[in-house]
Amino acid sequence: MASEFERIAMLQALFGKAPDDISLGIGDDAAIISPRDRSRDLVWTIDSFVQDVHFRADLMGWYDVGWRSLMTAASDLAAMAAVPMGALAAIVLPASFPDDDLLAIGRGQADASRSIGTAVVGGNLSRGSEVSIATTLIGSVAASVRRDGARPGHVLAVCGVIGLAAAGLRLLMQHPDDVPQDLDALEAIQAFRRPSARISDGLRCAGVASSLIDVSDGLAQDAGHIAEASRVRIDIDLDAVLDDRLVRLAARLGIDAADLALHGGDDYALLATMPPDALPEGFVAIGRCVHGQGVWIAGSDRRLDARGHDHFRSA
Amino acid sequence: MASEFERIAMLQALFGKAPDDISLGIGDDAAIISPRDRSRDLVWTIDSFVQDVHFRADLMGWYDVGWRSLMTAASDLAAMAAVPMGALAAIVLPASFPDDDLLAIGRGQADASRSIGTAVVGGNLSRGSEVSIATTLIGSVAASVRRDGARPGHVLAVCGVIGLAAAGLRLLMQHPDDVPQDLDALEAIQAFRRPSARISDGLRCAGVASSLIDVSDGLAQDAGHIAEASRVRIDIDLDAVLDDRLVRLAARLGIDAADLALHGGDDYALLATMPPDALPEGFVAIGRCVHGQGVWIAGSDRRLDARGHDHFRSA
Repeated sequence: MASEFERIAMLQALFGKAPDDISLGIGDDAAIISPRDRSRDLVWTIDSFVQDVHFRADLMGWYDVGWRSLMTAASDLAAMAAVPMGALAAIVLPASFPDDDLLAIGRGQADASRSIGTAVVGGNLSRGSEVSIATTLIGSVAASVRRDGARPGHVLAVCGVIGLAAAGLRLLMQHPDDVPQDLDALEAIQAFRRPSARISDGLRCAGVASSLIDVSDGLAQDAGHIAEASRVRIDIDLDAVLDDRLVRLAARLGIDAADLALHGGDDYALLATMPPDALPEGFVAIGRCVHGQGVWIAGSDRRLDARGHDHFRSA
Repeated sequence: MASEFERIAMLQALFGKAPDDISLGIGDDAAIISPRDRSRDLVWTIDSFVQDVHFRADLMGWYDVGWRSLMTAASDLAAMAAVPMGALAAIVLPASFPDDDLLAIGRGQADASRSIGTAVVGGNLSRGSEVSIATTLIGSVAASVRRDGARPGHVLAVCGVIGLAAAGLRLLMQHPDDVPQDLDALEAIQAFRRPSARISDGLRCAGVASSLIDVSDGLAQDAGHIAEASRVRIDIDLDAVLDDRLVRLAARLGIDAADLALHGGDDYALLATMPPDALPEGFVAIGRCVHGQGVWIAGSDRRLDARGHDHFRSA
């Protein structure tokens, strides 16, 4: 097994050249950012990706673990309408973790960051009892979009399918050794293993959307964050939310499609509010903001609870 | 036990108001940095602090865990001559971790960040099998000091005692239930539990030092990083390194004082090189740079190996 410094050198070779805004990458005490456009604000986030909590190594390869750890963190930049400038990753590994698996993680991180126009420019390797990756990203933003600007009369719109990744996870759990190969199943599994941070979709919301969030904890909970921060009530048209593939897959799995969409949050779709005449390309209306509070199913008296993922309450 | 969102609210109350450069703190998808002085570059680091690897909960309280996790990360900013602008912390906790202990961690982080003029402005809480804290900090810098500028003829200087924290750790391990109360012991234990990131000492190196690093892995290894990056040989005057308290404590512990100083790295002292007539206040010469390579004990033919902490090699 390689030493800590040999492993850092292996990862550095995978991550490649630092992006233009980064004037010093891996190799010193810290990275240095020299922004080309100094008028823009910076957006900064950190996310954890922990074995047996955020992922099961038997349901995704180590490449997918690296990919997904980077993308779920980068999705928070998309949700602020920011463009990534660089990422740092703090990787914790068991003492016996094989070099090849670490390289697979690094390749997943490198490809994911490259696909959104950035790179891992530093980080930290240390030992622990379980695999755990903390990823921090910085992006630049001209006009950030927060959670608190939704107003009565605005529509709720989504970019991306919601619930498909949760269906993919359940397919993998039901058939761990014999993964279905039909198109619906493959698309759902791909949605789960290789989500993409919707950076360019987020950018299209700048100056248009009154609020923006990524769906990481389920539609009910994340729409609830907008409703609470903006002090509005949100009514969701359930029919508009449910993708045809999701409905077919839910029937096969014997579970409720609406439950997957409302409480499964692994797709990293973007959720925005905006005036009804302003929908950017790629966004589809799935509800509206009215006076009041909470998140409701439109045309019913059903108020959704915030049951998404709670790290200290879920079973 | 409080929910994830209740716990985040508890921590937010501890962390207080965001610093001036932070225009949006806890509560959205990401923090927003709006630097007051946009001419300065940014310095960015991440560090992990993992239970039973970086700390033992039986040898320090949870307050100390929070304090130390923040300070060891912030020390990387000191080592670049940067001033902190804010911190994010990704905290991983077992499902049963008590609220009071989390509050103690948060108080340690809050006090540590306040003592260096900054604050925790966001982060992430999730579940895991062990306590693990990843801390990322951003600082601003007018003239960063890297590792690669040391030249033959420059002196090696240190700010802070080296080895005292390692002695403190060994005292705690030898006497876990009956910690000695004499002044030497208390100072060593304090050095271990409550290190301070030497932000203002680092700033005094800007424009003066040719290289700068923090001693996190032991003097031998960290001086070796300067020697390698700067392509010089470094000769260390061992007598100048050994603090009187360290010598007394080492005798009591029955271990070699030089071993503690050369291979114990828990003090987060700063190590710099500079022309001999330029020592900033607080820095003491402990060696010199000459042509060649490696780190040597001056006046001997003893070349030090890089044996510091290696996460994938150490016993």
